Amino acid sequence: MNFVGSHVLSVSQFDRPAIEKVFAVAAKMEPYAQRRRVTRVLEGAILGSMFFEPSTRTRVSFGCAFNLLGGEVRETTELKATSIAKGESFYDTARVLSGYSDVIVMRHELEGSVAEFATASRVPVLNGGDGANEHPSQALLDLYTIRKELHGRGKAIDNLRIALIGDLRYGRAVHSLVKLLCLFNNVQFVLVSPQELALPEPYVAAIRAAGHKVVESTQLQSSIGQADILYVTRTQEERFPSLAEAAKYKGLFRLNQSIYTEFCEPNTVIMHPLPRDSRGDANELDNDLNENPNLAIFRQTDNGITIRMALFALILDVADDVDKHARDVNWYTARRFQ
Amino acid sequence: MNFVGSHVLSVSQFDRPAIEKVFAVAAKMEPYAQRRRVTRVLEGAILGSMFFEPSTRTRVSFGCAFNLLGGEVRETTELKATSIAKGESFYDTARVLSGYSDVIVMRHELEGSVAEFATASRVPVLNGGDGANEHPSQALLDLYTIRKELHGRGKAIDNLRIALIGDLRYGRAVHSLVKLLCLFNNVQFVLVSPQELALPEPYVAAIRAAGHKVVESTQLQSSIGQADILYVTRTQEERFPSLAEAAKYKGLFRLNQSIYTEFCEPNTVIMHPLPRDSRGDANELDNDLNENPNLAIFRQTDNGITIRMALFALILDVADDVDKHARDVNWYTARRFQ
Amino acid sequence: MNFVGSHVLSVSQFDRPAIEKVFAVAAKMEPYAQRRRVTRVLEGAILGSMFFEPSTRTRVSFGCAFNLLGGEVRETTELKATSIAKGESFYDTARVLSGYSDVIVMRHELEGSVAEFATASRVPVLNGGDGANEHPSQALLDLYTIRKELHGRGKAIDNLRIALIGDLRYGRAVHSLVKLLCLFNNVQFVLVSPQELALPEPYVAAIRAAGHKVVESTQLQSSIGQADILYVTRTQEERFPSLAEAAKYKGLFRLNQSIYTEFCEPNTVIMHPLPRDSRGDANELDNDLNENPNLAIFRQTDNGITIRMALFALILDVADDVDKHARDVNWYTARRFQ
Repeated sequence: MNFVGSHVLSVSQFDRPAIEKVFAVAAKMEPYAQRRRVTRVLEGAILGSMFFEPSTRTRVSFGCAFNLLGGEVRETTELKATSIAKGESFYDTARVLSGYSDVIVMRHELEGSVAEFATASRVPVLNGGDGANEHPSQALLDLYTIRKELHGRGKAIDNLRIALIGDLRYGRAVHSLVKLLCLFNNVQFVLVSPQELALPEPYVAAIRAAGHKVVESTQLQSSIGQADILYVTRTQEERFPSLAEAAKYKGLFRLNQSIYTEFCEPNTVIMHPLPRDSRGDANELDNDLNENPNLAIFRQTDNGITIRMALFALILDVADDVDKHARDVNWYTARRFQ
Repeated sequence: MNFVGSHVLSVSQFDRPAIEKVFAVAAKMEPYAQRRRVTRVLEGAILGSMFFEPSTRTRVSFGCAFNLLGGEVRETTELKATSIAKGESFYDTARVLSGYSDVIVMRHELEGSVAEFATASRVPVLNGGDGANEHPSQALLDLYTIRKELHGRGKAIDNLRIALIGDLRYGRAVHSLVKLLCLFNNVQFVLVSPQELALPEPYVAAIRAAGHKVVESTQLQSSIGQADILYVTRTQEERFPSLAEAAKYKGLFRLNQSIYTEFCEPNTVIMHPLPRDSRGDANELDNDLNENPNLAIFRQTDNGITIRMALFALILDVADDVDKHARDVNWYTARRFQ
Repeated sequence: MNFVGSHVLSVSQFDRPAIEKVFAVAAKMEPYAQRRRVTRVLEGAILGSMFFEPSTRTRVSFGCAFNLLGGEVRETTELKATSIAKGESFYDTARVLSGYSDVIVMRHELEGSVAEFATASRVPVLNGGDGANEHPSQALLDLYTIRKELHGRGKAIDNLRIALIGDLRYGRAVHSLVKLLCLFNNVQFVLVSPQELALPEPYVAAIRAAGHKVVESTQLQSSIGQADILYVTRTQEERFPSLAEAAKYKGLFRLNQSIYTEFCEPNTVIMHPLPRDSRGDANELDNDLNENPNLAIFRQTDNGITIRMALFALILDVADDVDKHARDVNWYTARRFQ
């Protein structure tokens, strides 16, 4: 994959060397993401941030990543304010708005919309989520987190043992992560879900086709003992036919500290694409895990900044210039990163 | 016209030397607008962007123009979030908010509102559109586009032949453009509209008073053969008494490639203030023109950045300093400008 | 009080030395706030601006203050766009979002919410208003204004004579200002309100406990003759059980130029936390005072920028570095500050 000037629309664009490239650049971004160093490599550049579907986390994460490279961000956060309401085609919107910025990140509820927009855009477009379809930067930050967490434990993504837990049917993050993991060697998957929310068959087939082991289960406690990573997900109630239908499945798998202590190997890493649903009827990841040092969920979101910085740097071809004219941070930053 | 510290509220402020001044500064802005050079001349300055009526295109265009000069942008995008709901006068809002920034761009649905706001403002105010009244930067970018497009064809605004097509009654952009063209010599106007949407009489009178030729028509094909510029507009349905009333006039004049080929001179330039209405019942400018190199509509929006940079530079008195400490762009910018 | 890395949640955190420290740093910020000098001391830093309740004035003031120190601002302006709607806890939201920025300013309608958020935040949090509870930067800018205005008249906060006028029951700004004034010596309070909107008893008791004089009155004209400062407030109708209930009290105390001339000492300073309600049924501060040089209400909002710059500089520990690498402003700034 040649990154320079490319759109990032799908995890399917990434082969293993491309992933290694992103991770190598991400490692170079760490001092900047962690506020130890300041770079201004993209000073004067503009990110067009177009979130036609509400989002705080992803929108702010992309925006901060661009700011941390020295660039500016111009945002649009609602669809109804746009010319599309006056009959403008996606083609026109893309042609116009891509004349204003150097790169665009876009989220839209319609599957395929971001790719359609990218076709007409005159600048690179990053997919910030198109409905139930793709959210590639999420999958990359998940994989980067797995690698970082395992590295500290003397392990790697090759030979990984991972349990995917919860709503595996509607969880966009899980689907994309599975695709990326298929590029590695000898991964052991444990898929823990109610039967109705099982991982769709094409993904299971892809796992097998890649030569990985896969076990399916409907029971939590018996499934997590051999995992390096527990990847827990929320019931994606907004994608169900009805909230009542979703309610049937909420709270079926709840991980807490006592289950962790009894059934997991020491230092098993806990991940979650967030938000976790902490309401009483869901609570898939109990708050009593908050002091568990293996709870990696906030390191995971921190890694989102790093990965997005790496993608911007690669696409805009400044990865080798980031360290030029960099300087130390001169303001208070204690307490920040775990 | 003395630009330094002035409000820009109406095209009526501009005489021909003022227009030439804006265009001369705009020409100096091209390398920055086109991402070949970076300037930081307004580093530390703040634009207050107050869009009390929804807008993406104009809001983002002004914001990017200010960023490209090195300044920051603080935005307000809705009226209900303001103190006006608590009984605050426009005077107070203007006094307060003008203490926060170095220059303000404002859009508001009420005609005359921006001028009223400017009276109380302590910093220069640019009118980003006040209802059906004025949108001066749009008129300037339209005129700048005409000049640039014609220049490549060995022509100028003097002796221009232009066809204005569509909703000439409610089209704010058309009205302002007509006013500016009246400042030039020997312009030939062809006004193509349904009778009910004809250019209001005062504008027609102004054209004649300025010594220009004007022909009115209700038929497209027979009217476009002698034009250098076709300026096509959308039926401004939001300004009609009802959508049903507007629907009567949508789709009456549709320009497409076959009509263009049969009836226009070669290299006739096609413009549109955008958004174009691409829905089937409107479609005033067919998508089959998208590959026609004379379709200037996206160059037109690109020129919006340039013109707005020029206005900021003139008003804040940095036009002669822009090139100081400028540098080349160091990131990927291929594919961008047409 | 040690500012570096601290949250600013309540005026109760401030003792007199802390206030003096803020004011000393604020004085150093004046040249930057007034656009005579530019500093870039926080270049590369990010403010997370999270306004879960609508606000223009406070949000933009904090944002501009951070920009004027050289930093960037990433904003969230609505609650429904956040993951809280998907069941995320405040704890998680705080953990995630505090990983994105260097400091956070937050407004939320629930009392205590900002403090709860701060507990989980990994970076310092400034309270931009939590319902009827606290808005500490407003109280500090009010007190700073009093000091600046009196200084020009040869007076100080010690021995101040202040009349607090209007809705003293629901006015958050009044409550916080009273708390701060209690830290000074020999302040004389005149409390002018309808009985039903009197200053709550705990505040009156605190005034007496601090050894200050306090007089309560339900009549305007007879109460303002001995004051250095008239601090006028709006009827906070949004905090009443009903608008009808609030309407009973609107317009009871109206200060205008003729009352000012007849009953006040020369040069009595007029303040108001803004917005003032200029509708006919309220109009607590008449527009005919707008040309009165003692009307300090817009100098007051200007001071908000200065105070917020000082808070950021202290919390992020750059107060002594602001002047390094500073430079003169090079763009047009006439007419700006009164």
